[in-house]
Amino acid sequence: MNRKMVFYIFGRIGQIIGGLLLLPALVAIIYGEHRQLWSFLGTALFAAAVGSGISLLCRTKNKVIYAKEGFAIVSLAWICMSAVGAVPFVLSGDIPSYVDALFETVSGFTTTGASILRDIEAMSKSMLFWRSFTHWVGGMGVLVFVMAIVSNMTDRSIHIMRAEMPGPVVGKLLPRGRDTAKILYLIYIVMTLVQIVMLALGDMDLFESIVHTFGTAGTGGFGIKASSIGGYSSYSQIVIGVFMLLFGINFNLYFLLIIGRFKSVAKSSELWTYLGIAAVSVVAITVNIRHLYPDFSTALRDAFFQSSSIMTTTGFSTVNFDLWPSFSKGVLMLLMCIGSCAGSTAGGLKVSRAIILFKLVLCEIRRMLHPRSVTSVKFEGKAVDKQVLNSVCVYFAVYVFCIVVAFIAVSFEPFGFESNFSAVLATFNNIGPGLGAVGPAGSFADYSVFSKLVFSFAMLMGRLEIFPLVIALSPSTWRKN
Amino acid sequence: MNRKMVFYIFGRIGQIIGGLLLLPALVAIIYGEHRQLWSFLGTALFAAAVGSGISLLCRTKNKVIYAKEGFAIVSLAWICMSAVGAVPFVLSGDIPSYVDALFETVSGFTTTGASILRDIEAMSKSMLFWRSFTHWVGGMGVLVFVMAIVSNMTDRSIHIMRAEMPGPVVGKLLPRGRDTAKILYLIYIVMTLVQIVMLALGDMDLFESIVHTFGTAGTGGFGIKASSIGGYSSYSQIVIGVFMLLFGINFNLYFLLIIGRFKSVAKSSELWTYLGIAAVSVVAITVNIRHLYPDFSTALRDAFFQSSSIMTTTGFSTVNFDLWPSFSKGVLMLLMCIGSCAGSTAGGLKVSRAIILFKLVLCEIRRMLHPRSVTSVKFEGKAVDKQVLNSVCVYFAVYVFCIVVAFIAVSFEPFGFESNFSAVLATFNNIGPGLGAVGPAGSFADYSVFSKLVFSFAMLMGRLEIFPLVIALSPSTWRKN
Repeated sequence: MNRKMVFYIFGRIGQIIGGLLLLPALVAIIYGEHRQLWSFLGTALFAAAVGSGISLLCRTKNKVIYAKEGFAIVSLAWICMSAVGAVPFVLSGDIPSYVDALFETVSGFTTTGASILRDIEAMSKSMLFWRSFTHWVGGMGVLVFVMAIVSNMTDRSIHIMRAEMPGPVVGKLLPRGRDTAKILYLIYIVMTLVQIVMLALGDMDLFESIVHTFGTAGTGGFGIKASSIGGYSSYSQIVIGVFMLLFGINFNLYFLLIIGRFKSVAKSSELWTYLGIAAVSVVAITVNIRHLYPDFSTALRDAFFQSSSIMTTTGFSTVNFDLWPSFSKGVLMLLMCIGSCAGSTAGGLKVSRAIILFKLVLCEIRRMLHPRSVTSVKFEGKAVDKQVLNSVCVYFAVYVFCIVVAFIAVSFEPFGFESNFSAVLATFNNIGPGLGAVGPAGSFADYSVFSKLVFSFAMLMGRLEIFPLVIALSPSTWRKN
Repeated sequence: MNRKMVFYIFGRIGQIIGGLLLLPALVAIIYGEHRQLWSFLGTALFAAAVGSGISLLCRTKNKVIYAKEGFAIVSLAWICMSAVGAVPFVLSGDIPSYVDALFETVSGFTTTGASILRDIEAMSKSMLFWRSFTHWVGGMGVLVFVMAIVSNMTDRSIHIMRAEMPGPVVGKLLPRGRDTAKILYLIYIVMTLVQIVMLALGDMDLFESIVHTFGTAGTGGFGIKASSIGGYSSYSQIVIGVFMLLFGINFNLYFLLIIGRFKSVAKSSELWTYLGIAAVSVVAITVNIRHLYPDFSTALRDAFFQSSSIMTTTGFSTVNFDLWPSFSKGVLMLLMCIGSCAGSTAGGLKVSRAIILFKLVLCEIRRMLHPRSVTSVKFEGKAVDKQVLNSVCVYFAVYVFCIVVAFIAVSFEPFGFESNFSAVLATFNNIGPGLGAVGPAGSFADYSVFSKLVFSFAMLMGRLEIFPLVIALSPSTWRKN
C-alpha cells in the first residue's frame, strides 16, 4: 500500500472541495445571504488548509498506485467530501442536525436525490444551489475531475477511474487516463450548458435552469419546489425528460459521435436495449394510468417523464406516482434496479450488466442441453472475457445481498414493508424518492438517526458500486508492504 | 429428441399416479366417504388406462436419453401429475373450481403448502389425506420413485435425477442411478415412519400423525386445522420442529451416516452453515418477540418452530407470525429465500448455493486487489469446477429475475406490496404462507384466476429449479433429430 500517495491525492481533493465551495459562496453574495456566505467561506478555508497541509506532508516520489490504492483513495475521498460538504448546512442553520445534513450531502454527491427536508422552499438560495451542485460534481466523479486538472498525476490513474466510474468495463478512450477524463468532462460541461440554455428559454429563470440542470446532468434529482418539476410548463418537463435520458447514455458513445464513428454508435446494443426498455415502460405505464387522466397526451407525458426519471435514477417527479396503480409502481421498481447505461452518470445495476446476465442465462440453457458444446457470451460484437462475466455475476449477487441486508437493518422502522423496501432500493440505486412514506410527496425526515446512517452508507455503496468501500474498509488493505 | 422414450416413461408415470390414488381411496373406505371414494377410483382408473395405453404405444428399443429428454420428462410429468391429481377434488365437490383444485394440487406436489381453502376443517378426511400425501410424493420426487421401482429403465436415468433433484450438484451415491434412488427412498420412508410413531405417542391420533408427517417429510406444510400446528401440545410442536430441520438436510449425509463415514458428515460445511443460520435466526427472533410473550420458553419455542418451518420451506405455523414485529418478518423473508440444503426435500435457493455465492464474492474481492493472482473457490474441501460456479451464479440471476417477473405479473392485485411480494416468495420458494393477506391466518383464495395460475407456475418453477420447465417449453427441444 502506497499510503503516502493515497494521502497526497486525498489532500489535493481537500483543496478541490475548498475551491468548489467558492461557487455557492458566490451565489450567497448575489442573493445577499450573509450567514450562508460565511458558512461556505469558513468551510472552504478549512478544507483547503487541511488539504494543503496533508498533501504537503505526504509528497512522495513513488507515484505508483495499484488497484488497492485506487479503491482506497476513492472511498476516502467520497466519505470526506460528504462529511465536509455537510458542514455549511449546519453552520448556516439551514439543516440544524449534522446527521441530516450528512444524509443530504451524501444524497447529493451520490446523485441520489433523497431528501430529509420537510419544507424545501424555506431553504436559502445558496444552499439550494450547493445541494444541486453536489449532484453535478458527483455525477461525473470527483476523482475523474482531479485527474483532469491535476497535471502531475501518474498514468496509473486508470485504477482511480475504474474505482469511480460505474459499469462492468471501464475503457480508456485515449491512451492516457488524464486525457480521457478531460474529454469526459468536456462532453459533460457542453451538455450541461445546452440544457441550461434550453431551460432558460422556457418558464424557468436562470437560477432554476441551473439547479435543475445540475440535478438532471448528475441524474440526481434535487429540486427546489415541494412539487419537484410538477409546477413547470410541459416544455420544461419534456426538456428535462429528454436530457435525463441523454445523461443516462454511456458517455463513450458521445465521444464516438464526436470523432465521427457513427456506425459504432448505431451498433451499440446497450444503447438500443436502454431505449427499448424505456419505450416499453412508457407504453405499459401510459396504458395503465390512462384512466386517471382527462387526456392521452398528459398521461403519456407523465409516464415518459417518470420512466425516464426513475430509469436514469434521477428521481425528479411531475406527479405523485405513489398514487398510481400497483402495476405501474411495480414497473417503476423494476426500472429502479436496472438503471441506465454503464459509463453514464446514472446508478442502478446498469443495462450492460442486465444484458450480460441475460445472455449468460441463455448460454447456460444451451450448455444444459448440449453439455459438451463450447459457448461464449458476446456483447457489443465481441466475446466477453470470462473474468468479466464472472465479475458481472458476482456483482449481481453482492448487489442483491446488500439490498437484503440494508432492508433487514431498517426493518424495525414503523413505515411498513413497501416504504422500507422502496427506501432501500431508492437509496442503494441512487434514485431518490421511493414509494409510500418516502414517495414523491414524502421525505426521509421521519427515519431514525440509525436508519439515516444506513441509507447514507447504502447511497455511497451504490454510487461506488460496492467493492471500493468494502476494500477500503478492510484493515488488510492499509498494511504496509 | 427421443420422443418415444419420453412418452413411454410419461405413460409409466400415469400408471404410478393411478396406483398412488388408491391410497386415499383406502382412506375414503375407512371413513365411509363414498363420493370421495368414487372420485379417487374413477381418476385412478382413467390415469392408469391412459398411462398404459401411451406406454404400450410408445415402446421403443432406443432407450438412450440425454439431458434434454430428462428435462422434458420431468416437466411433462409434473404438469400432468398436477392436472390429474386435481380431478378428485372437483369430482367429489370438496373444491368446486378446477383452477383452485389445480393450485392446491400443484401446491401439494411442489411441497409448497399454500392453500386456497377458506375452511380447511370442512374438508373430508380422504381429501385431507390426499392433499398431504401429494407433499410426501413430491418431496422426494415422482421420477426418482419411478426409477426406484421400474426395472427396465436405462442407466442414463441420472439425467432424470439431475432434472428433478434440487441443488447445484447431484451426485450418484452408488454407481447405478437406480440404486441411488432406492437408497434415498429407503431413508425417506424410515424417517417418515419414525416421525409418525413419535407423533402418535403425543396428542395426535394416527390420522393426524400421518398427515402431519407427510407435510413435514415433504417440507410441504398442509395441515388439517385452521390453526395449523398451533392447537397441538408443545411435545408435538417440538417433534415437528426438529423433524422439519432433519428433512432439510442433504439426504446424502444420511447415507454417509449409514455406511459409517461419520467424519465426512462432521466436515460438511453446508450442514454446519445450515444449522448456524437456523440458530442465529432463532436467537434474533426470540429476542425480538420476547416482549409479546409471558415467558421466555414459549417465545423460544415459537421462534424455533417458525424459523425451522420457514427455512425448510415447510410452512407449518404455531402462531400468526404476520403479527410479529417487522424485524422478525424481515428475518423470515430472508430465510424464505435461502432455504435448506441441496439434496433435501426443501425449496429455496439452497444453502450450498448461498455458500458458493459468498465465497465467489470473497474471491472477486481478492482478484480486484491482486489481478494476477490465481484464485479458486473451495466447497466441502474440494475446488469447485468453474462450470458449476458459473451455473450457481446464473441460477441466482434467473432466480431473482423470475421473482421480479412474477411480482410484476400479480402486482395489479389489490392486496398491497407486502402481501403480493411475500406471496411470490412463498410460492416460488415452495414455502406456503407469506405475510399480510397470505399470512398464516389468510389464504390465496381471494386472488384472481390469473394470479392463481401465475402462482401455480411459480411453484412448479421453484420446485424444478426453473430450467427444466424453460427447456421443456421451448419448441426446439421437441424437434426430431
